[in-house]
Amino acid sequence: MKKHNYSAGPCILPQEVFEKAAQAVLNFNNSGLSILEISHRSKDFVAVMDEARALVLELLNLEGKGYQALFLQGGASLEFLRVPYNLMKESGKAAYLDTGTWANGAIKEAKAFGETVVVASSKDENYNHIPKGFTIPSDANYFHCTSNNTIFGTQIKDFPKTDIPLVCDMSSDIFSRTLDFSKFDIIYAGAQKNMGPAGTTLVVIKEEILGKTGRAIPNILNYQQHITKESMYNTPPVFAVYTSLLTLQWLKKLGGVPAIEKINEAKANLLYNEIDRNTLFNGVAVKEDRSIMNATFTLVNPEHQELFDTMWKEAGISGINGHRSVGGYRASMYNALPLESVQVLVDVMKELENKI
Amino acid sequence: MKKHNYSAGPCILPQEVFEKAAQAVLNFNNSGLSILEISHRSKDFVAVMDEARALVLELLNLEGKGYQALFLQGGASLEFLRVPYNLMKESGKAAYLDTGTWANGAIKEAKAFGETVVVASSKDENYNHIPKGFTIPSDANYFHCTSNNTIFGTQIKDFPKTDIPLVCDMSSDIFSRTLDFSKFDIIYAGAQKNMGPAGTTLVVIKEEILGKTGRAIPNILNYQQHITKESMYNTPPVFAVYTSLLTLQWLKKLGGVPAIEKINEAKANLLYNEIDRNTLFNGVAVKEDRSIMNATFTLVNPEHQELFDTMWKEAGISGINGHRSVGGYRASMYNALPLESVQVLVDVMKELENKI
Repeated sequence: MKKHNYSAGPCILPQEVFEKAAQAVLNFNNSGLSILEISHRSKDFVAVMDEARALVLELLNLEGKGYQALFLQGGASLEFLRVPYNLMKESGKAAYLDTGTWANGAIKEAKAFGETVVVASSKDENYNHIPKGFTIPSDANYFHCTSNNTIFGTQIKDFPKTDIPLVCDMSSDIFSRTLDFSKFDIIYAGAQKNMGPAGTTLVVIKEEILGKTGRAIPNILNYQQHITKESMYNTPPVFAVYTSLLTLQWLKKLGGVPAIEKINEAKANLLYNEIDRNTLFNGVAVKEDRSIMNATFTLVNPEHQELFDTMWKEAGISGINGHRSVGGYRASMYNALPLESVQVLVDVMKELENKI
Repeated sequence: MKKHNYSAGPCILPQEVFEKAAQAVLNFNNSGLSILEISHRSKDFVAVMDEARALVLELLNLEGKGYQALFLQGGASLEFLRVPYNLMKESGKAAYLDTGTWANGAIKEAKAFGETVVVASSKDENYNHIPKGFTIPSDANYFHCTSNNTIFGTQIKDFPKTDIPLVCDMSSDIFSRTLDFSKFDIIYAGAQKNMGPAGTTLVVIKEEILGKTGRAIPNILNYQQHITKESMYNTPPVFAVYTSLLTLQWLKKLGGVPAIEKINEAKANLLYNEIDRNTLFNGVAVKEDRSIMNATFTLVNPEHQELFDTMWKEAGISGINGHRSVGGYRASMYNALPLESVQVLVDVMKELENKI
């Protein structure tokens, strides 16, 4: 049976990426060797890394604007630490926006590191919206926000204007919508939503903001070191980088970010329209802050849960159980999820209505 | 043509691992989903992580001895920083043995962190041997050494006795030889030699040595956090862990570390005997410290280089060019390299002798 994979991440990638990645595990570039056994210094892999780094900047429209793309390890959680190490001055401070679990993780790591101001939080309302109208202290060394909140289903639509460096964790919505990415100074993202498999983290940096803290930075945490070594300061996660390249190539072929944005909007509209129309369901996030990646919703009557769960499982849907901190359901509609899969979910929701 | 892959790492893995890994990229455990698109919290992947962690302890004969195995990210280079963060007290110090490039990398990261004593170094002789007869300060918080020096082809045969915690970077010889692993308090190893593909780091920790520094440790660098979260503090590198499990299963089926040690010794003896017998070649490392993983050697007469290079390439051999800091040749004979491949190299060396 056809599967409809709504996993919140790691998540669905394009079928052609799975096929090409599997082929490379057996025989990479017709070399007679597996992608898993070649040197990261081999000509073939250096070409992969170079193309992946360049394609990131091309897809984000950041070519020739002083940015560098790195493929690192450690997940967004390691960037929670790298960011203050690279940007927070010895007796400086940082400003953070608290929009959910992952924003909070970033804040905790920064607080343990140095003075950290939380400019606003939606915690009191279980992160069902994005705080607005806050002030960013102009003497902070940087401002950090999380563009999309996977768990709560909210997404920043308008990023605050600020003169201090703007840092954004885009783990769960990078490459999903057009933005003026040149407004950001650091963008980072765990690969395992829209870019590739778990195991690499994309970091995009405006190089000129580095080197201003006067602080000694451990080599492995120093962005400048990774830039100087062209993202090969130490052995990179070869397979994860290669599979990310395949996914980026797929996206480019499709028409890039503007093309996938249209598809993502169509998917989100289809599902949110049904959530709003169908009286059996309620949306969780406030409408203006709804994520086009992760839709959170609940059943109005919890007694319908058993039937609904049986029905979507029978339809081949997986991964829509909500996170424990929200409950209900979460449909993650990352780039590679086809519109057809959303239609299957919407049909199940309508069918539930007919049955009750 | 059959390839003989002597790459220093990432390196050859067993053929059956490539085949099973490729299959899982297409359809993992007959789930209809790729290993790249499943949740790391799914039952199937939690089982992979649990089995991999247990199998590490079983293969190292460390079960029930208070050890924990973790699959982290960032390579050995991130452990260069995690180790002092977790073991060095606020005004404490650490002791390091300098046996080569990677030992030096660990020392540099530790020195930037706190007081670091280098107890001995073979740098003056381009690291062609392992220093001996040194004293480890008993008031240091730990002693760090590198068991095998990939670049220089040396290997520690007798580990120093010490009452302070013993930390060892075994990136390039873990699972290759029997040792009393319970003498070590922390063992770490980048996966990409004997364990799996690039993209995960194995860390084996005697849990009781943690929590004694009085130091605030960033969450992502805190071993205790990773232990508490059963190696899922954040999204693990799913594919790299799975492929490591496949390699560990292959090793267990073969008879574990004692069985592979015999094969590794046979391979090393075959090659070193030829290096010593054949007057066209010189070994680089002093005999008593020769690595059974990486054999370094040079041509006595550099004029033979062009011919020799042509001959080994024609025989299907790849990856034996020496590292730039040593020159000559380096034959890396990791666990998955068959004896047959070493015979092919030895035959080429003999053939060169016949031709000249």
